[in-house]
Amino acid sequence: MAQRIRLAKRVVAESDRLAKALSDRFNRAGVFVANLMSSPGAGKTTLLEETARRLQGELRLAAIEGDLATDRDARRLRAAGLPCRQINTGGGCHLSARQVLDAVRDLDLGALDVLFIENVGNLVCPAEFDLGEHRRVVVSSTPEGDDKPVKYPIAFHHADCVVLNKIDLLAATDFSLEAYRRFVRGLRPRLPILELSCRTGEGVEAWIDWVRVQRRAVAGKTASA
Amino acid sequence: MAQRIRLAKRVVAESDRLAKALSDRFNRAGVFVANLMSSPGAGKTTLLEETARRLQGELRLAAIEGDLATDRDARRLRAAGLPCRQINTGGGCHLSARQVLDAVRDLDLGALDVLFIENVGNLVCPAEFDLGEHRRVVVSSTPEGDDKPVKYPIAFHHADCVVLNKIDLLAATDFSLEAYRRFVRGLRPRLPILELSCRTGEGVEAWIDWVRVQRRAVAGKTASA
Repeated sequence: MAQRIRLAKRVVAESDRLAKALSDRFNRAGVFVANLMSSPGAGKTTLLEETARRLQGELRLAAIEGDLATDRDARRLRAAGLPCRQINTGGGCHLSARQVLDAVRDLDLGALDVLFIENVGNLVCPAEFDLGEHRRVVVSSTPEGDDKPVKYPIAFHHADCVVLNKIDLLAATDFSLEAYRRFVRGLRPRLPILELSCRTGEGVEAWIDWVRVQRRAVAGKTASA
Repeated sequence: MAQRIRLAKRVVAESDRLAKALSDRFNRAGVFVANLMSSPGAGKTTLLEETARRLQGELRLAAIEGDLATDRDARRLRAAGLPCRQINTGGGCHLSARQVLDAVRDLDLGALDVLFIENVGNLVCPAEFDLGEHRRVVVSSTPEGDDKPVKYPIAFHHADCVVLNKIDLLAATDFSLEAYRRFVRGLRPRLPILELSCRTGEGVEAWIDWVRVQRRAVAGKTASA
């Protein structure tokens, strides 16, 4: 047991060292980096497709796509005009700092304004791994049910913003907006909750504004550093 | 690295040993055990509520509920008449054989016909851990999108049955039944796919029949052993 704990500590220390290296690279390049987490199928890729369409010509965007298998999401993002690197974890349940370091090695980060990291669809494990990002975004969706914040508290605890997607399905589900907001506020009283539908476009502009504002805040900080 | 691999092998061997102990206990008691896995919010708990209502008086059922936090699901199952033990993993991304062994220690398994294990909502990690179950069930839901079988192949690869829930939302989503079936068949040509809606009740009877048939098959085998 003691041996297991020592080894686990060494693995965590190595992961933190690599995350710090990533964070340094991102800050030197002045690129704003957001790490997106959610259950499978909550709509991370659809949100990024919509984001690419709306910010095209205004900000220089790119994405890193994490999936167990296939390059389906990367192809969707490229089709939406978003340059993208696919990472296949081969069964791994989250992206690691090592994988992201490898993926950005030959990327010209200085030529980017925003880099999105779309993590593996998993509301548990990705929350434990720092990828050097500036902001963490948790994407929920109404068909998952309104109690996910209390049942998966770690992801929400570390989030800088919560996107609640698929509000077009509110009437077709038993989801209570009031309960969801209460559960999120119970964990994090001031966490922004952006309620939207990528399908209808309702509410998406508030998300785009959040990206703009966060990016400016980070750019101002890294420029003056 | 060699040390890490040796240690990982030891942890896996220990986990397999405990799963074998569970399997022996289940077989001695003659109880049919199904391990349910899905993304968060696909509808495992709702499916079990519905199962309890329909099999009440016919089969003696119980459940083990795995969640990171809260006893919300256990309370829902008890309200539906299903005796239930809650396991809180405290952040852990899957149920372990050790946790299930502790949960069944003072359960009279011989007085049960069927034990459902509802795993942590996670389409990745639970697939790697044997809990001594007779059958594995993967629950999908239409709002997650039709491509989950190819994006999360490990869970489907090890499944004995796939339940596709929330077919009442088909018209409100971009989900293609044909694509979903093709993706599942591409991985596992003969895997049963039960399409249903716990909300409307459509298709649920086929699931109940699946439980009856599997339970009889296992009871016949353990009785003759």
